[in-house]
Amino acid sequence: MARIVMKFGGTSVGDLARIKNVAKKVKAEVDRGNQVAVTVSAMSGVTNQLVAYCTEANPLHDAREYDAIVATGEQVTSGLLAICLQELGIEARSWQGWQIPIISDDAHGKARIVEIKGEDLIKRMEKGQVPVVAGFQGIGPDNRITTLGRGGSDTTAVALAAALKADRCDIYTDVDGVYTTDPRIVKTAKKLDKITYEEMLEMASLGAKVLQTRSVEMAMKHRVRVQVLSSFSDAPGTLVCDEEEIVEQELVSGIAYSRDEAKITLVGVSDQPGVAAGIFGPLSDANINVDMIVQNVSQDGKTTDMTFTVGKADLDRATSVIKDKLKIPFKALNTDKNVVKVSVIGIGMRSHAGVAQKMFSTLAEKGINIQVISTSEIKVSVLIAEEYTELALRALHTAYELDAA
Amino acid sequence: MARIVMKFGGTSVGDLARIKNVAKKVKAEVDRGNQVAVTVSAMSGVTNQLVAYCTEANPLHDAREYDAIVATGEQVTSGLLAICLQELGIEARSWQGWQIPIISDDAHGKARIVEIKGEDLIKRMEKGQVPVVAGFQGIGPDNRITTLGRGGSDTTAVALAAALKADRCDIYTDVDGVYTTDPRIVKTAKKLDKITYEEMLEMASLGAKVLQTRSVEMAMKHRVRVQVLSSFSDAPGTLVCDEEEIVEQELVSGIAYSRDEAKITLVGVSDQPGVAAGIFGPLSDANINVDMIVQNVSQDGKTTDMTFTVGKADLDRATSVIKDKLKIPFKALNTDKNVVKVSVIGIGMRSHAGVAQKMFSTLAEKGINIQVISTSEIKVSVLIAEEYTELALRALHTAYELDAA
Repeated sequence: MARIVMKFGGTSVGDLARIKNVAKKVKAEVDRGNQVAVTVSAMSGVTNQLVAYCTEANPLHDAREYDAIVATGEQVTSGLLAICLQELGIEARSWQGWQIPIISDDAHGKARIVEIKGEDLIKRMEKGQVPVVAGFQGIGPDNRITTLGRGGSDTTAVALAAALKADRCDIYTDVDGVYTTDPRIVKTAKKLDKITYEEMLEMASLGAKVLQTRSVEMAMKHRVRVQVLSSFSDAPGTLVCDEEEIVEQELVSGIAYSRDEAKITLVGVSDQPGVAAGIFGPLSDANINVDMIVQNVSQDGKTTDMTFTVGKADLDRATSVIKDKLKIPFKALNTDKNVVKVSVIGIGMRSHAGVAQKMFSTLAEKGINIQVISTSEIKVSVLIAEEYTELALRALHTAYELDAA
Repeated sequence: MARIVMKFGGTSVGDLARIKNVAKKVKAEVDRGNQVAVTVSAMSGVTNQLVAYCTEANPLHDAREYDAIVATGEQVTSGLLAICLQELGIEARSWQGWQIPIISDDAHGKARIVEIKGEDLIKRMEKGQVPVVAGFQGIGPDNRITTLGRGGSDTTAVALAAALKADRCDIYTDVDGVYTTDPRIVKTAKKLDKITYEEMLEMASLGAKVLQTRSVEMAMKHRVRVQVLSSFSDAPGTLVCDEEEIVEQELVSGIAYSRDEAKITLVGVSDQPGVAAGIFGPLSDANINVDMIVQNVSQDGKTTDMTFTVGKADLDRATSVIKDKLKIPFKALNTDKNVVKVSVIGIGMRSHAGVAQKMFSTLAEKGINIQVISTSEIKVSVLIAEEYTELALRALHTAYELDAA
């Protein structure tokens, strides 16, 4: 007997036929003798429609009203799945964020879960009841509905699993697991059986869209074992878990990429203390996240070039801030949207040298120029011209011996 | 300064443009210096879609889940109207049934309001805030969402007006008031300025679809002055109020009709004590409402005929019950769906004789045969062949001097 939280995303509950299919999957888990809680997203398309209503009503709408409106999407799915489960003979009931309660802070539209009162649900699960929890929402200190921001249903699932002391949190989605790299680009990509929290976190924040970053952070913090699997097949997925649970740890687990990058270079900045603060302070004030940063070695001892990346969507705002707000003189401002960030990720890097070197030499062999490099304990990221994306991914996948047999 | 509850039905909030129009109407009331609370239905079509989902999930669905699902319709409208009001500079916020709370009993799907805690809303209204309350819903003793049944938004409005001690409850709809009879049939029908609760109650239960019966009952009980008016014009509507407020009371206020009638005649029933109980007991057990009843005078002292009406939708079930469950012998069972009930309604009847007589003679002059008669203190209803509906309505409208000049 295990206690399991199952989470189904918008595509998995896209219409009544799919919700009935989800009910069958839940029943199968119950029939195996497990205690099950479920959390669901809105039916696909519903959230977008509700958001469009809010924007049409007023582009600068009250986030508290937005939350009350948008949270109805998950409310509907939770009720419908409860009905479908009952039809299969499962004792089920829907739960809204305010009923459990799922207590959040008051950051309407992007709230964070503070606490889930799980005692009542645990008692009910022990008696065989299946709670069907509306994902993506909570109740704020003002007794009003909050939403956790887009993708927040994953976070609900992991937080619920932590509160219910679940053995596993199964995230059902439209892919069947986490791959060594994007299988649409690299045909030899392999599905991973297991991956550590740390690696998954890097994957999520470096462009792999399987799990939302925040949900992985929460899983890591509360040591919730998370399985990513497909709602359209019965194959096992990828388990995101603690390092100790992975017996044979590979050097490199995967290769991620993100096209959501834009490069900015400030040419001829004076090379003196306070320059970095002078550049990145105003960008930070404007809520623009800066990712990779490289400061060239000064040639003349007086000026240098500063290169960094921002999200593509922020590029225009970033150039405005630089032109209008920067008090530091510079000679020229160059921007480039045609870049991609490719990252090699592996917890094995910690104890093995040469991982980065293999990356650089592999790219060099293919004639791919590296524009910016950034490293962390378990990943190496490089910025290259976007046109080399596929070539780089395939070459690196082979170089790190990740190709399927 | 007055305190007013404004209620807008599904057609009035059918899309964003209409919700913005509603916001303007609310602002106009605020600009007149009034304290205003608003309650809204779901956007037209939304409730039907949600009900269809429930039925598709399982035709015998859990009413508690149905309520959680269907209540989202009003939740969305309340949030959208709050946003639109804010855009016009009005301080507004949405309120769900569980937030106020609107406490109901546990009859999910057809709950009754037990109490509305209005103190907080009154304080906020006194400070200029406009509460936008999701209609049609409450919270049950099980801390779960309840709905009041179709048309329940009128009831929410009236109950809210009572709880907020409002001076008036304005029900905005797609007709501009209560008429002396159906203006689609009788071109000379007049809009009434005022009508008593008692008359409105008869009108509502006798087929006039302007207000839901239960909301009128509640208005009468709590002496809430209710105005029915159009959300698509600025003309004043009809005020439903206490008898004392109506200076010149007409003898007859209106003529209602209902095509939702079917006639059943049991021929040759034995004329002895217990026969009526023997017939209507089994029908009542089957939850079939019997309306008009006539027992003929026995010709031979041994047998008689029993005639009564049921709702058209119940006719088939009623005949099954009679054939299968009745222990009393009868010679024949005749049914007729082509009947209409025409009712003359007026509080003035109490003190004036001859109202019923005028009805009978008017119909006789037109050669219309009366099949069944039933009377109450303030109405006379007759059952006639359906083909005479228009003729009867026009003749009676003229006979009681209701025609517009």
